[in-house]
Amino acid sequence: MKERKAIVVGAGLVGSLLTILLAKRGYQVAVYEKRPDMRAAGFVGGRSINLALSDRGWKALQLAGIAEDIKAISIPMSGRMMHDINGKHTPQPYGKEGQAIYSVSRGELNLKLLDLADQFPNVSLNFDQGSTGFDLLNNEVQLENETVSAPLIFGTDGAFSAVRSSMQRLPRFNYSQYYLQDGYKELHIPPGPGGTHQLEKNALHIWPRGKFMLIALPNEDGSFTCTLFLPFEGKESFEQLQTPEDILAFFKKFFPDTVPLMPDLVQVFQENPTSSLVTVRCSPWHHENKALLLGDAAHAIVPFYGQGMNSGFEDCTILYELLETFGDDWDRIMPLFSNSRPLDSNAIADLALRNFIEMRDLVGDPQFLLRKKIEAWLQDEFPKAFLPLYSMVTFSHLPYSLAWQEGQAQDELFEKILAIPGVNQNWKTEAVKTVFQEWMQERERNERIYAKPSEL
Amino acid sequence: MKERKAIVVGAGLVGSLLTILLAKRGYQVAVYEKRPDMRAAGFVGGRSINLALSDRGWKALQLAGIAEDIKAISIPMSGRMMHDINGKHTPQPYGKEGQAIYSVSRGELNLKLLDLADQFPNVSLNFDQGSTGFDLLNNEVQLENETVSAPLIFGTDGAFSAVRSSMQRLPRFNYSQYYLQDGYKELHIPPGPGGTHQLEKNALHIWPRGKFMLIALPNEDGSFTCTLFLPFEGKESFEQLQTPEDILAFFKKFFPDTVPLMPDLVQVFQENPTSSLVTVRCSPWHHENKALLLGDAAHAIVPFYGQGMNSGFEDCTILYELLETFGDDWDRIMPLFSNSRPLDSNAIADLALRNFIEMRDLVGDPQFLLRKKIEAWLQDEFPKAFLPLYSMVTFSHLPYSLAWQEGQAQDELFEKILAIPGVNQNWKTEAVKTVFQEWMQERERNERIYAKPSEL
Repeated sequence: MKERKAIVVGAGLVGSLLTILLAKRGYQVAVYEKRPDMRAAGFVGGRSINLALSDRGWKALQLAGIAEDIKAISIPMSGRMMHDINGKHTPQPYGKEGQAIYSVSRGELNLKLLDLADQFPNVSLNFDQGSTGFDLLNNEVQLENETVSAPLIFGTDGAFSAVRSSMQRLPRFNYSQYYLQDGYKELHIPPGPGGTHQLEKNALHIWPRGKFMLIALPNEDGSFTCTLFLPFEGKESFEQLQTPEDILAFFKKFFPDTVPLMPDLVQVFQENPTSSLVTVRCSPWHHENKALLLGDAAHAIVPFYGQGMNSGFEDCTILYELLETFGDDWDRIMPLFSNSRPLDSNAIADLALRNFIEMRDLVGDPQFLLRKKIEAWLQDEFPKAFLPLYSMVTFSHLPYSLAWQEGQAQDELFEKILAIPGVNQNWKTEAVKTVFQEWMQERERNERIYAKPSEL
Repeated sequence: MKERKAIVVGAGLVGSLLTILLAKRGYQVAVYEKRPDMRAAGFVGGRSINLALSDRGWKALQLAGIAEDIKAISIPMSGRMMHDINGKHTPQPYGKEGQAIYSVSRGELNLKLLDLADQFPNVSLNFDQGSTGFDLLNNEVQLENETVSAPLIFGTDGAFSAVRSSMQRLPRFNYSQYYLQDGYKELHIPPGPGGTHQLEKNALHIWPRGKFMLIALPNEDGSFTCTLFLPFEGKESFEQLQTPEDILAFFKKFFPDTVPLMPDLVQVFQENPTSSLVTVRCSPWHHENKALLLGDAAHAIVPFYGQGMNSGFEDCTILYELLETFGDDWDRIMPLFSNSRPLDSNAIADLALRNFIEMRDLVGDPQFLLRKKIEAWLQDEFPKAFLPLYSMVTFSHLPYSLAWQEGQAQDELFEKILAIPGVNQNWKTEAVKTVFQEWMQERERNERIYAKPSEL
């Protein structure tokens, strides 16, 4: 048994949560974070995308014991609200009655996690402590003025992880970073009179425009945090939006209903940076029984499935379960976690890339909306046999890789269903049911795994 | 027009060739190489895989003007020679009569290229000059004791390129490194009595064994350079070969005919390192009009198609053609080269990974050997319409991406041909011709591009 002592590099969402879970299991945890303590210095916004907590995230927060605290400061969003170019709204529920994803501020959530971590006597939080190097062979972390060491080092230092960079120099480390041609910019809809929300509060708003889109998530103070996703270069692109006139004309043309809601649009647009969107994959996530990457440091994904934080939190849940199952036997846990979990993080990375196309494009497509309606109906008719892909990802704890595999099979199903003559007019039909049942039977013949919702 | 001054980082094969071509176009070229001058210090072997020069490589050497010099020190290999476990040999030609790939020593080839580069008064070769950093925004290269600068910086510093590492820190640089689970080790068959070759001289020898293989390429002195490709871990693996007894037993079991040919097998096996096999991809290859990666620095591939050096040399040929076409307009050349060439380097990277399976496994498979025979026959029967994939890659200058696309179509063709009843017994039939002609017609209907061999 190793000395129960760990270093956590990075005190973001995943680092703070991991610290709490390790502390609960009796580890002495020293956390090193290069930024100042946001509880004193304030959270620096301007380039964040609001978070959408869903079931995988909640599970981890329950384990940490702060799910109720967070629920009190989060806003349920029961569906998407599509805004077409004429200002028409079309709601589209995410799941069944009562299911929702939750809008929460990254800063507030991080503060609560740090506060909780700080309550453990076996945790030391160290801010303004950037790491200048790592010696993973000797369990050492170099800080500016000292070198610290522990038998366990966790890299939770985000998409541009320094711990990962040092792993990249070890033999046979597989790594990829892939950027979208699109960037994003944070914008802001202020509260209406008396702190009211100027758009439907309990929805994630989307203005899909084919090659680009605007989204808005509600905040508690009545405001919305908006994000514009747009190519860096090309006809409609950030490159083209230089002057106040460019910016205003672009919004009037493509998002006319938002212009009256954003009186300081031009100023915010020019002040906030344009950020890029990266997908990072690597393996292995561990080095011997000594070091492990979690969260964005191991698998940064694009934000279009709302699963970045949720998947990072699920890393922590799964690691905690391994610790309980194998009694802190890191010789077994490190390779087990590191060899199996990337399968799932790769699946959610792929799903998130695919969902960009869905959000910016398909949500305005009648065929896509029809599919969503038929999905809901099939789920009602065959509750033990059919769970739509979105629900598997968002409202279940099925491994992402299984959800993705199921989703591909569902694509085949809907190719058949949407080819039924007249299905556009009338889709609650025996013909649709028959196609579904034949699909199910064939799948059972193929002996594919299918988890029934009751087991989720 | 920019000042005609360039820095080349790395004086390996591609760096030396690039230097010659830039010098020919009148550039002042300063080359910085971290290793000592191999012309004085000698070439350090022990971890190299012999090179197989093919048409793309020869074209570049012709452009540089040293094709004849190199031909004089290289050995044509007109085909593979398969060795089965009972010592039986099966030859399999690479192409048509007179076509061959050429075994050449990396050290000798590099020496000749350096000698030639050194003859240009506008070239300065600097050895033992490792770069410690790059400032690509300001065109600077930091050496140990000084900082040098030029409007053009070329990174030809290999698979672990330092120039590329500095590009990786720039925004939106896509990058991946992927390791095989297999490693390799250089071995040696010494010359026989009187400097004779102990195996057929004009062949690339393969001992395919399913999950692993041994290969041997001829050298001028009568020896062969052998390479063992084997998984790092598992039942048959490097991990299992620790003691002299392990090593000898393994070779006696799987490569019995080689044991008498390698009297110092155990010693060489233990002395030489076990190296890993990486595929590196990235984009863009350029930074503005200032810096460009070529060769392994931009696209390291595994050695199983014999195209690592050839594709790096082809980078140089294509760049040279761009220089001639666009009169040294680097503003146009850099993005043009950097945005188009990765399509081809990705294709040969994929083909090389696929060929590992072919070499270690399929070359012992009767169906595969039958396909090769039918390919040769179809090429004779339809010389203007059919060129096998291997020939497109090795004996043509078709873009790799087009060859790969053609290769996938040819796979479909041979699925149909090998399903013809009785084709194993009798394959020079009208039935085979008919399947081929139907396939051709369908392809023409689909209006796919097909380059006729006469245009290659």
